[in-house]
Amino acid sequence: MNDLQMRLSDTLGRGGWLDAGEAGGRTRDWLDRFGEMPLGIARPASTEEVAAIVAACAEAGVPVVPQGGNTGLCGAAVAGQAGAVILTLERMTKVGAADADAGCIEVEAGAVLSDLHSALGATGLIFPLHLGAEGSARIGGLIGTNAGGSHAARYGMMQDLVIGLEAVLADGSVWSGLRAVQKDNAGYQLRKLFCGAEGTLGIVTKAVLRLHPAPARTEAALLALPNAASLIAFGTALRREAGEFVTGLEFFCETGMELVRRHVSGLDLPLESRAPFYLLVELTCGSEKVPLSEILEAALEGGMEAGHVTDGALAMSEAQRAHFWRLREEQPEGQRLEGKQLKHDISVPPGRLAAFLEEAEGICEAALPGVRINPFGHLGDGNVHYNLSPPEGSNDFGDTAQRLGEEIGALAERMGGSFAAEHGLGRSKIALADRLRSETERRAMARIKAALDPEGLMNPGVIVPGDG
Amino acid sequence: MNDLQMRLSDTLGRGGWLDAGEAGGRTRDWLDRFGEMPLGIARPASTEEVAAIVAACAEAGVPVVPQGGNTGLCGAAVAGQAGAVILTLERMTKVGAADADAGCIEVEAGAVLSDLHSALGATGLIFPLHLGAEGSARIGGLIGTNAGGSHAARYGMMQDLVIGLEAVLADGSVWSGLRAVQKDNAGYQLRKLFCGAEGTLGIVTKAVLRLHPAPARTEAALLALPNAASLIAFGTALRREAGEFVTGLEFFCETGMELVRRHVSGLDLPLESRAPFYLLVELTCGSEKVPLSEILEAALEGGMEAGHVTDGALAMSEAQRAHFWRLREEQPEGQRLEGKQLKHDISVPPGRLAAFLEEAEGICEAALPGVRINPFGHLGDGNVHYNLSPPEGSNDFGDTAQRLGEEIGALAERMGGSFAAEHGLGRSKIALADRLRSETERRAMARIKAALDPEGLMNPGVIVPGDG
Repeated sequence: MNDLQMRLSDTLGRGGWLDAGEAGGRTRDWLDRFGEMPLGIARPASTEEVAAIVAACAEAGVPVVPQGGNTGLCGAAVAGQAGAVILTLERMTKVGAADADAGCIEVEAGAVLSDLHSALGATGLIFPLHLGAEGSARIGGLIGTNAGGSHAARYGMMQDLVIGLEAVLADGSVWSGLRAVQKDNAGYQLRKLFCGAEGTLGIVTKAVLRLHPAPARTEAALLALPNAASLIAFGTALRREAGEFVTGLEFFCETGMELVRRHVSGLDLPLESRAPFYLLVELTCGSEKVPLSEILEAALEGGMEAGHVTDGALAMSEAQRAHFWRLREEQPEGQRLEGKQLKHDISVPPGRLAAFLEEAEGICEAALPGVRINPFGHLGDGNVHYNLSPPEGSNDFGDTAQRLGEEIGALAERMGGSFAAEHGLGRSKIALADRLRSETERRAMARIKAALDPEGLMNPGVIVPGDG
Repeated sequence: MNDLQMRLSDTLGRGGWLDAGEAGGRTRDWLDRFGEMPLGIARPASTEEVAAIVAACAEAGVPVVPQGGNTGLCGAAVAGQAGAVILTLERMTKVGAADADAGCIEVEAGAVLSDLHSALGATGLIFPLHLGAEGSARIGGLIGTNAGGSHAARYGMMQDLVIGLEAVLADGSVWSGLRAVQKDNAGYQLRKLFCGAEGTLGIVTKAVLRLHPAPARTEAALLALPNAASLIAFGTALRREAGEFVTGLEFFCETGMELVRRHVSGLDLPLESRAPFYLLVELTCGSEKVPLSEILEAALEGGMEAGHVTDGALAMSEAQRAHFWRLREEQPEGQRLEGKQLKHDISVPPGRLAAFLEEAEGICEAALPGVRINPFGHLGDGNVHYNLSPPEGSNDFGDTAQRLGEEIGALAERMGGSFAAEHGLGRSKIALADRLRSETERRAMARIKAALDPEGLMNPGVIVPGDG
C-alpha cells in the first residue's frame, strides 16, 4: 500500500476501501471498452467521507473518478488512466421522505433509480424518469450524464428534475445547494451545470428532485406505421389532441423487431400485420374524470383515417401494456445478441426524422453496403438510437466505424440536432466532439473545467480532453 | 467623440449609436435605483454587429451592459459604472416560424414577449411564459434573468424553455448553439448556464424556445381562503386531482386587495365575503374531451368540504377570467401607488408557506411595528413577493430596509428556499448574496465568471462583485 492507499483505507474504515484486486466489475465500463487499472475503489458512506477522499487525492495529485451504477454507455465512470481512485457512491443510498406539498424529495447520490420508484410507492407521487437501466442506474450517475429516457418529452431530463444539489468540489470543499425550490435565481445555475458534467467539476453527493402526481389512469397502444413521415405526422397530431397526457411515444422498426424475435423468447408482435415502423403510445393522467381511453381511441381513428396508422392494438391489461414496453425495451438486447454492433445516440428535431433516416441510410450504404440499420427511440424529443449490425452473414464493420460515427453525427448536427443526445460524451465521444463542435464551444467548456478543477483531477479525460 | 465612440458609430451606421444625451429612458433602471451615465447606447441589428461591438469594447477595455426591455427589477440592465456601453437588443426582434413537429421556434433576443405570444396566434402552439411585464420584456432579458412568472410551476422557467442559444462571448467570438432538440448532452449545458447569467458571461443574441400545444379549454375560479395552511392544503389536493391542468395558482391577500381597491379603479372583488387570502385557479387543457369545468368544480367542492375554501366564483366569461387575473396582477401597482415600498422576491418550498409567513411577520413586527405586509405570488412554486408598505400614516421605513431584507432572505434560505427567486441578483442583491450564500458557492460563481470573462468587461458588478 502506498501512502494514499493507507490514508484512504484509514479514513474509510472496514469495507470502505477496496484494492484494485478486489474491485469486481467496477474497473471496466458496461460495454467493456474503457477502464484502466485504478489504485483502488473508495466506498464512502457520507458526504464528509467523499470530501475527505477528494481532499486526500487532491493533495496527492491523484485523479478521482466517481461511479454510480456503472451502466452508462459513454465510459465516463471508469479510470481513463492507471492509478486513479474510483469513488463509488454505492453506500450512499438514502432516500428521504417525499414532500407532497413541495413535490420533491431528497436522495443520496448512490440511490438506485428503481429503489426511488419503489420508495415512492403509495405516496401518490412519482419520480418520472424511466430508462432501461433503472434497476442499476444510480441518481448521481443519472445527474452526471443528464439522463433522459423514455418520459423526457413530458417530464424533462435530469436537468429539469434536479432542483437542489450538494456536491464535493475539486479541493474537497462541500457545496451545499440542497434547496427545495424551483425558483432560485441567486446567481449562476450551478445545480443545472452539474447535470451532464460527468463528474468533471465535482462529485454529486445528494440531490433534491422534483416529483409529479402519480397517474390515476394509464392507456397504451401499439401501432403499425408505413413510414417515418407518418410517425412525425401522427406524433404531432397526438400532441395537439392529447398533449398533457403523452407519457410514452416510443418507436422501433421492423429490422429491430426481427432481431428481437430471433433472440428474445416470448416477444411476439401482437398485431395482425407487419410494418416498417411501430409506435408505442402511452397516455397517463391524474384525474379519474378524464376519458383517457376515448381520447386515445379518437387519436388512433384519426391516424388511421389519415393513413398514418395501418394497424393497432390497445393494451387491455397491465400484462399487455408491459408486453408492449418490452418489445421496445428489448431492442438493444436483440441487437446485442445478434453480434457486433455500432451504437449512435443522436437527436434531431422530430420533424426532421424522416429526412434524417433517409440521408443516414445513404451514408451507411455508401460506407458498408448491406449494413443492417435498426433505428429506435423517443419520437417526442427526436432522440434516435441509430444502431447498426453488420451485413447479414458478416460479423464485422471493417474499418468503417469511425467514418460512420462521424458522418451520422455530423448529419444530426446539420439538421439542428446533436451527435450526443442522452448518453453523454464520456471517454467514448470526446474525439467526435472535437471534430463536430466549434472551437468556441469547446474552448468555453475547457475554461469552465479549468475554473472549477484547476489541477485537472476530477475525472480527467472526460468531456474536455485531458493533458495526458 | 472618443475613438471607441467613433468606431462604434461607424460600425453601426445611422441610428445604430446614440450618445448618452440621446439615450432616453435607457440609462436608469425601471425602479430608478441604478444606472450611471454610459458612454452611449449601441443598437446593433445583427449578431455580427453585436460581435463587433463586444470586440471593440474588449480592445478598448470598456464594459458592455446588455439591455432588453429594461423592465427588470434587479438593476442588471444599466451601467454600474460611468462610461460603459449599453448594448440594447431592441433592433433584433425577428421571430421565426413555429415548428409544430419539433415544438419550437427561433427568435432574436430583442423580440418582446407579447409579440412572440401574438406571432404564435393561430398556430395552435403557445410559448407558455407569462409575467406582468410581458408587453415590454424582451427574450434576451428573460433569458438573462431566467424569468419565471405565473405559469412556471406547470411549464418551467426560461432555463426549462430554452433548448438552443446563440451568444457573443467576451472576446467577441460567436458561440452558435442554435440546436432545436431537448436532448443534447455533448458537454456542459452552456444553454442552461446562460439562463440567469444576466449578461455577465456573454450576450445572448438568439434562442430556440420550446413551444407547447395551445389549450382548447380554459376554466378559472377565484377563491377565498381562511389562512395560509388552507392555501397549502388546497394547492396540494388540486395538483393531485388535476395536476396536468393547473396553469395558474396565484395567491394574494386582503391587505393587497385593500390597496388595489384604494388605488386602481374598477377592481372590485367578485366574491360575497372577504377573507385573509385569495387564490386564482386556472386550469387549461388541449383536449375538448376533458370535462374541465367538472374537474374544477369537484376540486372546489372538496376544498369547501374540507374547510379550506370559504367562498368562490367561477369565471363565466373571458371578461370575468381577465378580471380575476387583473386582481392578482395589479397587486404591485396598488402597492406602488400607496407610496414607498420594500420588495422581497423570495421562494420557499410550498409546504413551508404558512410557517414562513408567520415567522416573517414576527421579523417585520420586531423591526417596524405596524408595517403593512402584502405577500402575493405563485403558490405552485412557493414564490412569494413579500412586499411591505410603511405603517398606516407613515411614509418611510426608517433605517430598517437592510435589516428586513437580510432577515427575510435568511429565513427563506433556512427553510430550503431562496432569497432571490425569480427577479435575479443584478446589482440590487449582490451584497445580500455575499452575506447569505456560502463562500464555496460564491467562489465557484466567481471562477466561472473569470473563466468566460477574464477581463471582467461583461456587465461587471452584476452577480459577482466586480473589482471596482
